[in-house]
Order: sequence, then C-alpha cells, then structure tokens
Amino acid sequence: MKVVSGGVTAAKGFTAGGVHCGIRKSRTKRDLGLIYSEVPCSAAAVYTTNLVKGAPLLVTKNHLADGVAQACIINSGNANTCNANGVEIAEQTSSLLAKELGIKTEDVVVASTGVIGQPMTIDPFKRGVLPLVKDLSKDGSPRAAEAIMTTDTVKKEVAVSFELDGKEVTVGGIAKGSGMIHPNMATMLVFITTDCAISPAMLQKALSSDVKDTFNMVSVDGDTSTNDMVVVLANGLAGNEKIEEEGENFKTFMKALNSVTVALCKALAADGEGATKFLECSVTGAKTLCDAKKAAKAVICSSLVKAAMFGSDANWGRVLCAIGYSGADVDVNKVDVAFCSKAGSISVCEKGASVDFSEEIAKKILSEKEITIAVTLHDGEASSVAWGSDLTYDYVRINGDYRT
Amino acid sequence: MKVVSGGVTAAKGFTAGGVHCGIRKSRTKRDLGLIYSEVPCSAAAVYTTNLVKGAPLLVTKNHLADGVAQACIINSGNANTCNANGVEIAEQTSSLLAKELGIKTEDVVVASTGVIGQPMTIDPFKRGVLPLVKDLSKDGSPRAAEAIMTTDTVKKEVAVSFELDGKEVTVGGIAKGSGMIHPNMATMLVFITTDCAISPAMLQKALSSDVKDTFNMVSVDGDTSTNDMVVVLANGLAGNEKIEEEGENFKTFMKALNSVTVALCKALAADGEGATKFLECSVTGAKTLCDAKKAAKAVICSSLVKAAMFGSDANWGRVLCAIGYSGADVDVNKVDVAFCSKAGSISVCEKGASVDFSEEIAKKILSEKEITIAVTLHDGEASSVAWGSDLTYDYVRINGDYRT
Repeated sequence: MKVVSGGVTAAKGFTAGGVHCGIRKSRTKRDLGLIYSEVPCSAAAVYTTNLVKGAPLLVTKNHLADGVAQACIINSGNANTCNANGVEIAEQTSSLLAKELGIKTEDVVVASTGVIGQPMTIDPFKRGVLPLVKDLSKDGSPRAAEAIMTTDTVKKEVAVSFELDGKEVTVGGIAKGSGMIHPNMATMLVFITTDCAISPAMLQKALSSDVKDTFNMVSVDGDTSTNDMVVVLANGLAGNEKIEEEGENFKTFMKALNSVTVALCKALAADGEGATKFLECSVTGAKTLCDAKKAAKAVICSSLVKAAMFGSDANWGRVLCAIGYSGADVDVNKVDVAFCSKAGSISVCEKGASVDFSEEIAKKILSEKEITIAVTLHDGEASSVAWGSDLTYDYVRINGDYRT
Repeated sequence: MKVVSGGVTAAKGFTAGGVHCGIRKSRTKRDLGLIYSEVPCSAAAVYTTNLVKGAPLLVTKNHLADGVAQACIINSGNANTCNANGVEIAEQTSSLLAKELGIKTEDVVVASTGVIGQPMTIDPFKRGVLPLVKDLSKDGSPRAAEAIMTTDTVKKEVAVSFELDGKEVTVGGIAKGSGMIHPNMATMLVFITTDCAISPAMLQKALSSDVKDTFNMVSVDGDTSTNDMVVVLANGLAGNEKIEEEGENFKTFMKALNSVTVALCKALAADGEGATKFLECSVTGAKTLCDAKKAAKAVICSSLVKAAMFGSDANWGRVLCAIGYSGADVDVNKVDVAFCSKAGSISVCEKGASVDFSEEIAKKILSEKEITIAVTLHDGEASSVAWGSDLTYDYVRINGDYRT
C-alpha cells in the first residue's frame, strides 16, 4: 500500500471542485464543494446519533436508500439545521445539481456544515451550481477540501493505492472538522472515494466496521455534532473483480480504507479548534476492547488532561482520574502511565502510584507538538487508541465568539 | 425557615477551626481544617463513584460503618490519592486527632483535596494537630472553609434554621470545589452539620435522596473527582424528638437540608475554575425526570455552550445540539429555548427552529453574571435544574499550570 497524492480525486473517474457562492460573507473563502464520479457508484454512509439532525442528513439518507450515488455537494457557513425550510432547501439543492450534471436527483449526496439554526435560502445554491460544475477537475480535491472547512485551519486530504486482482485500486478522501467533534457512531464531514469495485452492502459493512475504531475514537470537545456524516463512493473503475463477500480482497480493501480514515482522524484531531498539540491515548492490557476504548476516550476527552497537556504539565493524576470515571472495568492498582513524544518517553505512574521522575525531562517531552499518553492496564490483552487535542485559550476565543 | 450566619458551626454544639500546617508552601493559606461536635453524632456520607478513590475515603468509609462520628479533619494541597502510603497516613491522621480530642479514632472523618499522586508524609499532620485543636471555636467556620479551598476563590458557607417540635433546629455547611467538578452519586468536599436529632439511617436516607437533585446536577468541567465526599453530622442537641422514620418532621428536615445543599451547589458552580458567569439550565415539560436531568446536565456540560455564554453569544443551536446528544427522549421539533437574566428574558428558539430575535437585547441579557438557559420540551410534566459555569481563558490558564 502506498500513499499517493490527489485526495478525493485520486481514484479513477472522480473529479472535484469548490467555489464561493455567497453563503459566507467573505469572498476569499470557498463555501460550496462538489465531488463527482463519471459513473454511478456503490455508496455507503454513517450519520450522527444526535437526535437533532441537519436537514441534509435526512435528504441524503433517502437518496442513499438504494446504495447508489454519483455526486456529493457540500456547503459550509450554515449547517442547515433547525431551519423550518431545511429539507426543502436540501432537496432543491440536489435537484439543481442533478439537472446541471445530467444525473438522477436521488444519486446526489447533500451535506452542510456551519452555524446551527441560522435562516437560509436557496439563492446562493442557485447562483453557485453552474460555476461549481464548471469548476470540476481532476486536480479539484484541494478546492473541495477548502470549501467544506469551517474553523479548520488546514485542508485535510489523503489517498492510498494498492493492488487487487493485479489491478491498481485507489482510496482517497477529504474531511472537515475542528469543533463540535465527538463522533458517536458517525462523525464530522468526511467524503471518501475509491475506484474499487465493491457492492453497496459490502461497502457499508466496511465503513460501519471501520468507524468504530477510527472516527468514533476522536474527540475535540465532547460535543457530538448534528451534521456528522461519512460517505464513501466506490465507482468500480479500477476493474478488479467486484467484492461481493468477505474474504482476502475485502480484508485488503478494509486495510486501505482504514489507512485513509486513520490519517483523516489524526488530521482532524491535530486541527482541533485552538489546538497547539495533537494527543494520542493508547491503552493496552485491557480486559476487553470495550474497556480499552472507554479508558482511551475518557483520557482524550478530559478537559483537565487537555489543559495539562497545553501547559506541558506531567499531571498524570488527571489521567488516572479519567480512567477511574471512564466506566472501564480496571484495577486501578495495576495501571502504568507514560508520556511519549519524539523527544523521548517517561514513566510517570506505576501500579497506580507515583514514581520518581524528572520534571525537567517530562516538560521537554510534553513540549512537543505530538504527544502520546501510553496507558497499560495489566489486566488482559485488549487495546485501543483515541485521538484528540489540547484545550487552549484559542478554543475559548474561537467559541466565545463564533457567530460574529 | 430562615437563613442564619455561622456556616458549619451554626448548629448547637459544633466548633471549627483551620490552620497552616505546611502541606502548602504558602504560609498565608490555611491547609488543615477541623469540624468538631461536643457529643457524638449520627453521621451519613456519599462518596465519588470514581474507581480511583482517595485514601481518606477508604478510611472514612470504615469509620462511618457504625453511623457515628464526632469530628472531621480535612487538608488541602494534596489529595492523598495514588500514594502507596495513603491509607496509612489517613489512619495515622485520624488517631493523632482522636488522641488530641479525647474521642474514638473510628469517630473521625478524614478528607483530602489537592493534587493527585503527589508524595505525602505524616509530618505536617503531626505538627498541625495540636494548633488545630486549639484553634477550635464557635466562630471557626470561615477558617475551616478557607483551609479546605484549592483553586476556589471564595469561601462557601451557608446555614438555615427552622422549627421542629417547638425546638429551633439548625443545618449549616461548608464546601470546597472549583475544578474537577462533575459529581456522580457524590460530590466535591462538603461538610454539613446539624443539631437535629435524627437516626443515622434516616440521615443517610435524607442525604442520598438529596444529592441526586443537588450536587449530582452540578458540573464545572465534566471531570468526576477521585476525592468527592459529602458528610453530614447530626448531634441531636436541638432537643427535638429524634427522627427515626419518614413523616412530617423528616420532610421538614429534608427541606432544610435541601436549602443548604442548593445554596452550596450554586456557590460551587459560580466559583467554577476561571468562571465569569454562573449558569443554570432549567428543563421543564420533559417526559420523565430522567429525561429532564439528562437534557439539563448535557447543556450545562457542553464546552461549546459554556464558551458561547462566556462570549455572551446567543448561539442557541449549541443548546439544541446538546439536548440532541444528551440521551434524553425528546421530540426536537417541540423544543423552546429562552435566555434569562436580571436584564430580562428572550425567546431564541421555538419548536426546534430559529425565531427572529434582537441580537442586541440577547447580548445585554447574556452579559449579566447569572444566566438561566430555560428549555421547554412540551413533552410531559417532569422538570429539572442543573448548574455550572462558563468556559473561559482562565480555566485554561489555571489548569495548564496547576501543579507549579
């Protein structure tokens, strides 16, 4: 498997684009993105578990009922959520695009991200659809990635290629997400494309299985969004024998999908609102996978751990505290904790108690941009990893004044 | 029922004190507090549900097994948690104090608060116990309240008196808590005294029932502490007929206890680490009490809601979002949201959708120090209230550099 360039257009037959249509006031930031496949695709998706759901999710769910899609249109600047006319706008957007592209309305995936409960009209979409379709190109992944950004500071694109039945297969994707990130069964906005030939059912199986260990293990601020969505489109143009069941080829595809989703997860966490540091919590030696996940996620979600990491403070008691309230079945008298970064690794807690360590070395390790909090439970064989970011002054600044 | 002065020593027969014994470096801050009853008391307590428990909790649980206690000794500056010799220190502290007071070791409640996993010795307690006992006086509540403070900025004391069988009965208490506040079945450190005559069993019943709607509805940062503890001592000196069962007198006592705990809850939330604002979320019209509580607590816990309140930003979509992921059974299309303060009240969301409102008036309302987020679910008769604080730069500053 190798990393390749091209993001969401790396796979055969996919183009993308992004324009400014006026949903955002600033003309310097694209606010409408498009991903298009020259042929209809197997499509799979997972959605937020929040009871408050963005109108585009409802429309997209209907459109994907048959497991087929050909294009994704995504706006930023307004979540189209808690609006009385939200579903109407999402449906109109789909049909405007379908008409322009000459495809079926039901083959359009529609998504929105931005402020919840802001009034919205169809006008910017009417203005934007034609220029957007004209903007489609093989090098359009960065423009689509930019168009879906909100408080994100960097574009998130990744792609890998691998071999299946002697054919080169590519999987690539883009993502947005920076705040209100605490996915639960689904996630922020992520669009993944592949030229792999795979049935809708197997594609859904691959995605649903993957998100449990990837997007669902990311948290920036504990707030599960109303508009979370991960969509995968597979157009089959790689020419491999169509994956219709489990087996070696499905495993290989899963592995490629996982390398794309993990890279996007890490990119999302590292670009958490206000973040100065990327945090990874690895838990090993847990009784069960569920215990490992609960412990890893509690550590990553703890405001106190996050603030300590911002301050490069080796305050490991907060890690123990988070494990203790995580709900994981752990023997707290067996827990080891170490902090690791490219500057080194230091053990700070053994068997649930303090060990003598150099504060100076710990500070140096924690001053790096990428920190791993390594927890060993000595209670079994299960392990898990969760990703997040530190809690900073800028998180407060960004969210104390988001709408204005 | 009337509010009276005197805090934890307002009830007959209780004295208190606080000294500096050297656990904290700063000599200007008391770090060891004591509450004493001239006669043995009925005692009840609730504790943290965190699996990582401070050593003093384990010792206190043993001592309270018989439902009797006579004194509480509490240090700040070190949580005595995740220390290999923690239980030994807590036991030694109890026996040092018991000897000095001439009471039974098993009648001592011991508690600690501060950094987790910091090495500790018995030495400061050895030095401190004699001066501490000498410091006991009827006006000692403020000194005890100060001695248990960590990042708290204000002392938290309250007392009320009422009549029972023609006798004046008093209930008073002190509390500490500012960060790592997200109680779950128990809470931060709270010590309540009363001269009411009540059996240990009924006292425990009253406390366990009360905390569900009071301390368990407070959150500053979502982190459940390892050292949470609420203790109530009742010495019976009011001379009322001893409460041994449910009935009018028990109800009256519960009401007085509740007025003390609610006042302490509000004081804890208002003094949340870095807080500039006290937040109350009131949920009405819920299907069940459980739904009302889940919704109220999710809103109070949301980092995004908290940051918006810091910025006086009427970003009600974040309130809807939190209700949506709270786990409460709600119909999101029926939800109304209003923001209220002493500057007025403004409806910002009706039936789950945006309403036209004046941003200027909303800003004015949200610029006050005490904000109520009023949520109406229109789905039933149950209601609940939760308390918290805003998320500020100072929360990050305090917790980015807590230990140094």
